[in-house]
Amino acid sequence: MKTGKFITFEGCDGCGKSTQLRLLSEFLKESGVPHIFTREPGGGKISESIREILLNGKNTEMTDECEALLYAAARAQHLREIVEPALQAGKLVICDRYVDSSLAYQAYARGLGVEFVEKINAFALERYLPDLTVFIDLSPQDAFKRKNGADENDRLEQAGMAFHQKVYEGYQAIATEYPERVKRVDGKKTPQGIFEEVVKLLKEKQCL
Amino acid sequence: MKTGKFITFEGCDGCGKSTQLRLLSEFLKESGVPHIFTREPGGGKISESIREILLNGKNTEMTDECEALLYAAARAQHLREIVEPALQAGKLVICDRYVDSSLAYQAYARGLGVEFVEKINAFALERYLPDLTVFIDLSPQDAFKRKNGADENDRLEQAGMAFHQKVYEGYQAIATEYPERVKRVDGKKTPQGIFEEVVKLLKEKQCL
Repeated sequence: MKTGKFITFEGCDGCGKSTQLRLLSEFLKESGVPHIFTREPGGGKISESIREILLNGKNTEMTDECEALLYAAARAQHLREIVEPALQAGKLVICDRYVDSSLAYQAYARGLGVEFVEKINAFALERYLPDLTVFIDLSPQDAFKRKNGADENDRLEQAGMAFHQKVYEGYQAIATEYPERVKRVDGKKTPQGIFEEVVKLLKEKQCL
Repeated sequence: MKTGKFITFEGCDGCGKSTQLRLLSEFLKESGVPHIFTREPGGGKISESIREILLNGKNTEMTDECEALLYAAARAQHLREIVEPALQAGKLVICDRYVDSSLAYQAYARGLGVEFVEKINAFALERYLPDLTVFIDLSPQDAFKRKNGADENDRLEQAGMAFHQKVYEGYQAIATEYPERVKRVDGKKTPQGIFEEVVKLLKEKQCL
């Protein structure tokens, strides 16, 4: 059924993913490659309703299991409504975060475990595995330094840092487990240097 | 950790479940047994937000996987916020529909399969299996006759009937697979006759 290529972008908060997606958007528009950009969680009306529950700052009492299941529910809907039709139309689908985010954030950092997160995302892993996942490899410490220009010793921020460190370790584990699909790009390079790597990877997968 | 008893009520639409829950509510109030009544999907603020998405008639394009995952997400939240604290306080918890509804409606009737639905509900099946599930056994044909006082040959209603027949077959399979937990009560009896059976089952499980 699937004819287009499915590419996902992953990485820790502040890794420079948004900059790369903007550069890629400009590049694809100029090159005339039929494509769509999309993101998780989101897409159609139902997925956006789920996104609202997930990102509502007032929902502090949400359990980790509930959070992971809501991401999976939004994913199922997004795949059927947005990703599948575009792939069937032969388009290149670029998705900002996908199932690896659930593995890094929920399985590794929240501690739900890989088995549970893989189970609830079985439909995504079995039927819609990306052709290529670009992992922008930048540690949370480096992302934080770049953003703030200095080290930060605030206790709360340290707690946040411990969480992001686990996310980062999760991504490292995923990249090691799926070397064929997940490709590391050095996030310490300049935006243009990273983008050259991204274009090279897309060409290797015959996306361009 | 768990000290109270956890009782769920299941059955096809129109089986007489609501009447039994009302009779049981009156009985428990009079007898002074500490208890709560709750329902799925629902409970706290997050579960109710998920319920709104599930029961919104405009969400016709919802995929079966998304629906099943949303029910599981609401369940995870409901267990943690409502069911667990009540059980720990030693209360009898009566829940209108639970994981068997997901098995009957999503796994059997929607055709998602038992394996997928069991996987996404593993937390409920492993950690919060009911002490007793009362299955009010009334076929959709009998429920329909009782409601309308006659057979109905309308084509659309027949299509609906085919779905409810699958739900009913799902419940039969579940009751056969878990004979210790799931107890059938003959739904063709009078409401009072059914209620006598319900009280007997609750007494057998030392809930009363």
